Amino acid sequence: MNHGNRSTGPIQSPHLPLGDRRDAPFYGRDILEVAQFRRADLQHVFGVAREMREMVTRVGSFDLLKGKILANLFYEPSTRTASSFYAAMERLGGSVIPINEVRYSSVSKGESLPDTVRSLECYADVIVLRHPELGAAKEAARYARKPIINAGDGIGEHPTQALLDLFTIVEEAGRIDGLTVTMLGDLKNGRTVHSLARLLSMFDVKLRFVSPDSLRFPEKIRDELKEQRIAFSEHGDLEEVLSQTDVLYVTRVQKERFEDPQEYKRVQGAYVINNETLDRARPTMVLMHPLPRVGEISMEVDSDPRAAYFRQMEYGMYVRMALLAMVLGKA
Amino acid sequence: MNHGNRSTGPIQSPHLPLGDRRDAPFYGRDILEVAQFRRADLQHVFGVAREMREMVTRVGSFDLLKGKILANLFYEPSTRTASSFYAAMERLGGSVIPINEVRYSSVSKGESLPDTVRSLECYADVIVLRHPELGAAKEAARYARKPIINAGDGIGEHPTQALLDLFTIVEEAGRIDGLTVTMLGDLKNGRTVHSLARLLSMFDVKLRFVSPDSLRFPEKIRDELKEQRIAFSEHGDLEEVLSQTDVLYVTRVQKERFEDPQEYKRVQGAYVINNETLDRARPTMVLMHPLPRVGEISMEVDSDPRAAYFRQMEYGMYVRMALLAMVLGKA
Amino acid sequence: MNHGNRSTGPIQSPHLPLGDRRDAPFYGRDILEVAQFRRADLQHVFGVAREMREMVTRVGSFDLLKGKILANLFYEPSTRTASSFYAAMERLGGSVIPINEVRYSSVSKGESLPDTVRSLECYADVIVLRHPELGAAKEAARYARKPIINAGDGIGEHPTQALLDLFTIVEEAGRIDGLTVTMLGDLKNGRTVHSLARLLSMFDVKLRFVSPDSLRFPEKIRDELKEQRIAFSEHGDLEEVLSQTDVLYVTRVQKERFEDPQEYKRVQGAYVINNETLDRARPTMVLMHPLPRVGEISMEVDSDPRAAYFRQMEYGMYVRMALLAMVLGKA
Repeated sequence: MNHGNRSTGPIQSPHLPLGDRRDAPFYGRDILEVAQFRRADLQHVFGVAREMREMVTRVGSFDLLKGKILANLFYEPSTRTASSFYAAMERLGGSVIPINEVRYSSVSKGESLPDTVRSLECYADVIVLRHPELGAAKEAARYARKPIINAGDGIGEHPTQALLDLFTIVEEAGRIDGLTVTMLGDLKNGRTVHSLARLLSMFDVKLRFVSPDSLRFPEKIRDELKEQRIAFSEHGDLEEVLSQTDVLYVTRVQKERFEDPQEYKRVQGAYVINNETLDRARPTMVLMHPLPRVGEISMEVDSDPRAAYFRQMEYGMYVRMALLAMVLGKA
Repeated sequence: MNHGNRSTGPIQSPHLPLGDRRDAPFYGRDILEVAQFRRADLQHVFGVAREMREMVTRVGSFDLLKGKILANLFYEPSTRTASSFYAAMERLGGSVIPINEVRYSSVSKGESLPDTVRSLECYADVIVLRHPELGAAKEAARYARKPIINAGDGIGEHPTQALLDLFTIVEEAGRIDGLTVTMLGDLKNGRTVHSLARLLSMFDVKLRFVSPDSLRFPEKIRDELKEQRIAFSEHGDLEEVLSQTDVLYVTRVQKERFEDPQEYKRVQGAYVINNETLDRARPTMVLMHPLPRVGEISMEVDSDPRAAYFRQMEYGMYVRMALLAMVLGKA
Repeated sequence: MNHGNRSTGPIQSPHLPLGDRRDAPFYGRDILEVAQFRRADLQHVFGVAREMREMVTRVGSFDLLKGKILANLFYEPSTRTASSFYAAMERLGGSVIPINEVRYSSVSKGESLPDTVRSLECYADVIVLRHPELGAAKEAARYARKPIINAGDGIGEHPTQALLDLFTIVEEAGRIDGLTVTMLGDLKNGRTVHSLARLLSMFDVKLRFVSPDSLRFPEKIRDELKEQRIAFSEHGDLEEVLSQTDVLYVTRVQKERFEDPQEYKRVQGAYVINNETLDRARPTMVLMHPLPRVGEISMEVDSDPRAAYFRQMEYGMYVRMALLAMVLGKA
């Protein structure tokens, strides 16, 4: 959101209907990266998300954002994330303009991202942006008058995913401080686990990274964790840490990440969670996955109360409802 | 909708807002196939559909399903059916998440149908599913907590089409019992006529099947009709039965169904309905077609009061409104 | 909208909810071309558009079209126009069925435009149509019972764009009579400037056409202007008219319009507006562009108060809100 000089003229300002709480925290702010959240911010977001859940459970939807329009601008397809924001906005009584076909449309015919965003904000009150390029969300926010919510920009950030992951942990485990969180799978390419680790580093947690050697957690973020004095360790075998794990975060192991197909086969099999795995895990362990899964968690596990990954999706809707309400000054 | 064991945890149950009539018939049920409907069920659906029509005619839309969200999950394109459900939900005050691009999205990247459905039901209250594979709707319903409405699964069922066809007959002809219903065209591949014949077999009707020899009504369903003691006969020429027909249901004759292009040309011409045909038909005959047509009914017929095919589409919206309201416990 | 004979039957009439003002001007009418608007009509549209802007600014949206459904039928992609109508309808409390995938869907599989339109109007109260073929909107309107709004039919018309352009001029310049309006760029192929010139010819304006010789304003429309006794002149260089220009309307110069790539390069550079250009322009000049731009206006100009092109998009939403409300009898 651009707070600097802007062109003036007969249309002076963004739509600020009566009743907007301009003094509310996050009002008018962009959601671009996890680094913008402090511990108190997280508590505030989660508090609002809990209210959202309460209201959805009781009445399905309500009219908090009636009259507000979200432009759901997806330069690459992500049905899951797009649907989550769509439902979040609709359950708040707002409307959604879905823009999924960017690749075919005039929007993509040489028009710059700043122009597209400044065009859409003529119609919408908030823009959710998914873009394949690193830094796209910041670029958009530099030009936009309305709030931009980053729904993933390439290998960059996907802050609402990280927030919903953390919200899932606190709701399922009842706390964050004191937990041992184990991340499993492709820890090199998983944008999700990088952001979550950064958020967790604001709390008193132990982190365990379990991956094949070729897919280790990036050194850069490990260095950040050291600076934050977060206790972490790296492992090749889940068994080394399973029994002490409070939260097990499983990631997709994608074939295309491997240079050697043989290694993929070996690794893939070694990191599958099934009922046998859970037999050796804590009875209160929280099992998470960002979905979609492609075999990393066996379907037999789904009926285990510890399987939290579908609930994780539902928590995601509440977190996105909270963020939308907050940036629009209604929470 | 899965009523068996499911994982428990902090999120306990599907959204059951205050005021849902859990004792209502069809509440929480899936709509998968015509065989699940008894005669009394049909009367109930049609009664609700009539109320829907009354309300749409008077006020356009109303807030019966306010706060409810429909996920319109289409694995293959069907603008007509998708739009019908879309309008039905919106006219009931609910919201729709359109998911049309499954082939491009992460949903299709190896994710199983059960996982996709269980993800979407985290956001939505009911799922309409169109899928190219036989049995997909049942598979989805086995895993889903929320109601699944089958909007066509390959060569399988398309129950809401059959219900709207039957509703059209009763509204246009004033009754079902005692009617002679003639089905014309490709009776072998037409999913629509198979389901409609099954529904009609619950009533006291005479059926006339008119098709080229290579596209006869399937023996399996003919045997079912015999068991039900339904009077039917097969013909090659419409003239044999036109004068006794109360309802003429015309189907598409698709070129790609013919091995011999010459036969297609011959057949296609022989089954075109025009004003001359109608001159020899009963003045009260109801002329139906599931649409889109590709020449089977001449456009000159459109202004004849007997041409019911566009009204048939409108009846479809009312039937779908009724079904949505019923499975969500609001009718 | 077809007012002639139509089939009758149990469903008699389009949805005419209580409270529709059937005596309102434009009620039930199609919006097909600029020629259907008289000066008084324009004033009426702009008056309603101003009310829309006032209401959006104050409360974001309102329920004027609650219960109404718009089918947004786009046979070719145009994210910008589709989003504008989408937002317009939603801000009026109505709903939108987006139909963007016509090329994949059954709609396009040989179904005629009249059939598609008559199917969709079973669900919707108004249809916005974008189609690649000249005359498509008129063809659709000939068959439809519900109002058709032309959102561009090939090289034909795009009347709502012309109306929003004119509304931008009157709102930004405070008047139309007495203005000198300069059109710059590809004046041969620009559907936008043709329609705008026709609308402006109802007022007391001076027109200046600046283009390369190969992309001159069409003789046919120049002849129309002569008949209307509109003062205009043609130029190759903007400098000849810049200092006397009240409104500068810049159009895209598309590479594919040029037979000689060298000429494109030369022309493209010669028609770029930057801060240096604006230094020599009137301090109150209104700088417009239909967007998307591909370099014709330098981004450095965006912060100049005279840059009206993003506000132009916002005005577009108000004009479309006005038109939707008017054809649905609510304004």
